[in-house]
Amino acid sequence: MQFPSELLESAVNAFSRLPGIGRKTALRLVLHLLKQEASDVKAFSEAIARARTDIRFCRHCHNISDTDTCAICSNPSRRPDIVCVVENIRDVIAIESTQQFNGRYHVLGGVISPLDGIGPEQLRIETLLQRIHTEGIEEIVFALSPTIQGDTTIYYIQKQLAGTHLRITTIARGIAFGGELEYADELTLARSLQNRMPVDAYVMR
Amino acid sequence: MQFPSELLESAVNAFSRLPGIGRKTALRLVLHLLKQEASDVKAFSEAIARARTDIRFCRHCHNISDTDTCAICSNPSRRPDIVCVVENIRDVIAIESTQQFNGRYHVLGGVISPLDGIGPEQLRIETLLQRIHTEGIEEIVFALSPTIQGDTTIYYIQKQLAGTHLRITTIARGIAFGGELEYADELTLARSLQNRMPVDAYVMR
Repeated sequence: MQFPSELLESAVNAFSRLPGIGRKTALRLVLHLLKQEASDVKAFSEAIARARTDIRFCRHCHNISDTDTCAICSNPSRRPDIVCVVENIRDVIAIESTQQFNGRYHVLGGVISPLDGIGPEQLRIETLLQRIHTEGIEEIVFALSPTIQGDTTIYYIQKQLAGTHLRITTIARGIAFGGELEYADELTLARSLQNRMPVDAYVMR
Repeated sequence: MQFPSELLESAVNAFSRLPGIGRKTALRLVLHLLKQEASDVKAFSEAIARARTDIRFCRHCHNISDTDTCAICSNPSRRPDIVCVVENIRDVIAIESTQQFNGRYHVLGGVISPLDGIGPEQLRIETLLQRIHTEGIEEIVFALSPTIQGDTTIYYIQKQLAGTHLRITTIARGIAFGGELEYADELTLARSLQNRMPVDAYVMR
């Protein structure tokens, strides 16, 4: 692409470095911004810059936060004795959006994946173990992806917790609501038969 | 979506106001930026802000420019007597990328579209007519979209130019290179038969 302006080119280059945004999309976005009010574009640019400089991570659960301790960890109406272990911040946002979980979180920052060079040391497992010893946690709910890596991570952490009084659970796996039985994969279907549940637990409350 | 941080939320809101970017994509982009070097994110944010404040439009052809007169209009090796009329800046970039046009441009800023409230007054037709009288232009090449609106715009400008000595042309329309004949629409196929061309003009030089 030949650009008539260096300023345009550097703005397009900036956008096209983002994941999933090619040069044509980047150009469309920059030309869109050029048509907006100068104050709106200033606000856009400042929101991005401030997010990078000012966002912190909660020192308890490693969730994104504006303060040292995140709004969830510092909320006295949330149960301190149940902790949901997730892979990343997007999972926290997804679970919070369901409004069905009233405990705290622990963000691992990934799952064990030797092929990608991610071992237990790269994850925030040590701080999870510390929290279990100091925060009076009674239940750990794993909400990790149903993959080999996710299962390996659960297995590893579970081994570290051997001998504690903790209740260790994982979110239910089975046929999704609205899912067609005939399109479900065999493993999911087989497991959902093995782990069949009483009908009264199935009805949404 | 429930956000654990207001800074995160305002950055996601900023991105999701861009065309074609939903809230989930915006979140993915912001989380990506949070993982980058602070200096890279600063450069990103500044490139956007500078593009909006410092980019100008060429006072001759209305193309995007870093200066009062764009690099194309001020280039002495480009022919001043042939002007390609396009709808927007993206079209200039597309034509420049072919490296097949050595004249100047005129960016209309749209095409006549009464249903969208765009009449001839909303477009930069007046300055095109002025240029024709002052710049010694001898040929106008229309490179507009092959739509009713594009054709209406060509027809309107052509009427304004009645009585001048100008050569008025339009880019060729027909079956695209690599296009399958059987999937071409009837109008394109019919027109490309009517406007059939000698084989020696067809061969790419």
